Amino acid sequence: MIRDVSVTVRPGIVTYPGEPGPTFTPIHAMASGDLDNVNALSMGIHTGTHVDAPRHFIADGATADSLDLEAMVGPCRVVEVPGDDAIGAPFLENLGLPPDTRRILFKTTNILRAQKPVFDPTFVALGIDGARWVTAHGIRLVGIDYCSMEPFHQQGETHQELLAHGVVIIEGLDLVRIDPGEYELLCLPVKLEAEGSPARVILRDLRRPS
Amino acid sequence: MIRDVSVTVRPGIVTYPGEPGPTFTPIHAMASGDLDNVNALSMGIHTGTHVDAPRHFIADGATADSLDLEAMVGPCRVVEVPGDDAIGAPFLENLGLPPDTRRILFKTTNILRAQKPVFDPTFVALGIDGARWVTAHGIRLVGIDYCSMEPFHQQGETHQELLAHGVVIIEGLDLVRIDPGEYELLCLPVKLEAEGSPARVILRDLRRPS
Repeated sequence: MIRDVSVTVRPGIVTYPGEPGPTFTPIHAMASGDLDNVNALSMGIHTGTHVDAPRHFIADGATADSLDLEAMVGPCRVVEVPGDDAIGAPFLENLGLPPDTRRILFKTTNILRAQKPVFDPTFVALGIDGARWVTAHGIRLVGIDYCSMEPFHQQGETHQELLAHGVVIIEGLDLVRIDPGEYELLCLPVKLEAEGSPARVILRDLRRPS
Repeated sequence: MIRDVSVTVRPGIVTYPGEPGPTFTPIHAMASGDLDNVNALSMGIHTGTHVDAPRHFIADGATADSLDLEAMVGPCRVVEVPGDDAIGAPFLENLGLPPDTRRILFKTTNILRAQKPVFDPTFVALGIDGARWVTAHGIRLVGIDYCSMEPFHQQGETHQELLAHGVVIIEGLDLVRIDPGEYELLCLPVKLEAEGSPARVILRDLRRPS
């Protein structure tokens, strides 16, 4: 069974402050007598469910088109995060994840914030000590259920730590219908030569060796 | 092993005539002293590797966000198409595909056209009789290695036939390094509420029942 954990990209969705949401501009329109409907899309790249590439916080860093697909496809853990504090190293350590864990998605109380019609800066995210735990433990991908992996008051430290170590960041997931546990993650971002890229992300039951 | 069959989306890539290619507009730029790099993306939705949804040719048709993911993920056949003629019903019939075939990607002589810096209207595509063969045989998805599934001189008949029957269309694939054969297809379009959507498409070795 395929579980979609992506948000619908449509005009009016909440974006990070200062970043433009999606607009569709008709190029052809059947309502105007054209043969087909064709629109142009315009939006900030970090709109909806998307990945961050190193270029987002590293001037000469890699762009999204060169992210390693093997990092974005494979077994993953969905972890429930209670409360409203930043995700820290002690919390991650206490999860007792298997040492071969490579991908973690954080299901947080952001579920409630994501239902609001406006941006909520109190969102739960990964603190800098949590980011250091991630890079020290060979994690290749982390994902979260709001607009940013980094607490709102920080100045890029979480992004810098993750991106400098080649960790792929997924932001804007919808995990509301997903139970904590182990899945196969399939995160496929558009092959965009830019600092990030919109992505479709799904979970499937894990592929077990026979 | 993951085989990427998507094209890189960057300024200057070839698009269908009349449709704008990608532009990136800086919102934040580290080169200007900002903390990070953030761009806005603007482009025609049918740029690069993308899917068409029914809304593309059916005024009240479904948008890309509601395309069935099960149609876009699963076993697929990569079929080599020689020559420069439109893909027709006799060619498809003579392939002798297994009756449970649900997804077909056409690897054509468009490989040569895709290397050109400008749009080439002589591209190989699926003729209307070929489209009728597809819908009569329970195919759920077809993909091709140039900007359109429909011969340039036609007036929408191929798209209408496919989309009216709920067949997902992938356009703009890069199949140059792919041998004909059977694969697992993973086509994940951005969950865009529009008549189509950019997609990342990969092939893997087929998941065999144990």
